[in-house]
Amino acid sequence: MIGETQHYQVRIFYEDTDHSGVVYHANYLKYFERAREDYLGYQQLIDLGKEGIGFAVYKAELSYNEGAVFGDVLQIRSTAQFDGDYRMIFHHEAWREDSNKAAVIADIQLVCLNRTKKLLKISDLDIFK
Amino acid sequence: MIGETQHYQVRIFYEDTDHSGVVYHANYLKYFERAREDYLGYQQLIDLGKEGIGFAVYKAELSYNEGAVFGDVLQIRSTAQFDGDYRMIFHHEAWREDSNKAAVIADIQLVCLNRTKKLLKISDLDIFK
Amino acid sequence: MIGETQHYQVRIFYEDTDHSGVVYHANYLKYFERAREDYLGYQQLIDLGKEGIGFAVYKAELSYNEGAVFGDVLQIRSTAQFDGDYRMIFHHEAWREDSNKAAVIADIQLVCLNRTKKLLKISDLDIFK
Amino acid sequence: MIGETQHYQVRIFYEDTDHSGVVYHANYLKYFERAREDYLGYQQLIDLGKEGIGFAVYKAELSYNEGAVFGDVLQIRSTAQFDGDYRMIFHHEAWREDSNKAAVIADIQLVCLNRTKKLLKISDLDIFK
Repeated sequence: MIGETQHYQVRIFYEDTDHSGVVYHANYLKYFERAREDYLGYQQLIDLGKEGIGFAVYKAELSYNEGAVFGDVLQIRSTAQFDGDYRMIFHHEAWREDSNKAAVIADIQLVCLNRTKKLLKISDLDIFK
Repeated sequence: MIGETQHYQVRIFYEDTDHSGVVYHANYLKYFERAREDYLGYQQLIDLGKEGIGFAVYKAELSYNEGAVFGDVLQIRSTAQFDGDYRMIFHHEAWREDSNKAAVIADIQLVCLNRTKKLLKISDLDIFK
Repeated sequence: MIGETQHYQVRIFYEDTDHSGVVYHANYLKYFERAREDYLGYQQLIDLGKEGIGFAVYKAELSYNEGAVFGDVLQIRSTAQFDGDYRMIFHHEAWREDSNKAAVIADIQLVCLNRTKKLLKISDLDIFK
Repeated sequence: MIGETQHYQVRIFYEDTDHSGVVYHANYLKYFERAREDYLGYQQLIDLGKEGIGFAVYKAELSYNEGAVFGDVLQIRSTAQFDGDYRMIFHHEAWREDSNKAAVIADIQLVCLNRTKKLLKISDLDIFK
């Protein structure tokens, strides 16, 4: 999983756009998280949640090149890597069809917290074994 | 509180609109809930939450007459009444400025649930005493 | 199309839930609209939009029976019918897996407006021919 | 206006949280945009919109230190500066009450586009004169 590129599709609905006609900028953070949840596994995240363990976004950097519009099917391309024992970095790109440049690019740093909000060693989690 | 009309204001931002140019229809349910949370009291809801008690929407009926746009300040007018011991009905209206008719009207039925999802007598709650 | 039941799937992500642990009530209006957009056709809605024609929600009635949670795949079952020449009613049900009752049920009335917000005869639209 | 710190308040409602119990990370981009819209002026943005002129987020960098919860009143502190003729940078901080560190910090770069998506000189806009 780590090192491979995941492909995940997001359809753009009315709810995603704003009155400027394109997708509201904050929504890309949602699309990238959908891709990460799919990448990490829904059942795995549910199981971790039962133990009080969850991922939290620590830093996010986004670059916007082009606006997506209603009806688009964005392809989200994601790769992940560990950054030390306690951090994980996802690189995400949102591609519109027939485009030769990503519409939006992001680097998202995650940490993993237990029930008492203490940092956990991400690389020790079962889901990466 | 019960029987009186509460007035609550909601500013319309970019995030609230969709590419048709007006407020996305689902968002009015958010505005009405903001008004209810303000009506019931934030601290009161936090305190109930600590005991595992929360309100849940059981039925919602909305009528849309006019679309609000970016920059509008909607006035939300809300009244509440008990409907038996276990239900509460909020009537909400969203008014645009200088309008002679409510833009959106809603009746929202709430129930109150404890930690085990059992119905509680709403009229017995301390916040209504 | 009219009269048939459409099946549409919605995955529940972190973004869909609130701190009570279940899906935020307003989001079902989004899921039902996603299903309607899929039902009516994205390209058809884009083409109508270019002519300044769009659908607008006129009335919405929702009944909530059960809360969906993170990781759920809701099956949205939708049927549509005309109600006179100017209105269309969608009946939507959101089903959780392995459930014997719909989690949320809704009736959504739509009208169709042109660029000057005048009502159009829905049954005359090309997409229904 | 440029150089001064704007103070803007955001109340945290149920809609803002997710099932982890704290505010969903993407929502801070909304709060910061609300502050920017308030800063730039709603009527000014409406007037620019009528000429087909609008601001677009070009880059966003966010650091998350602490999660806000239901009932919080976040104080958003914003400052703006020009970065050359075509870019504007907003620095935003979201502060929880009684905290000695900002919960979330962001730098947001904006460009200004006309109807044909051509870059405009931001510093030439009437709203900055």
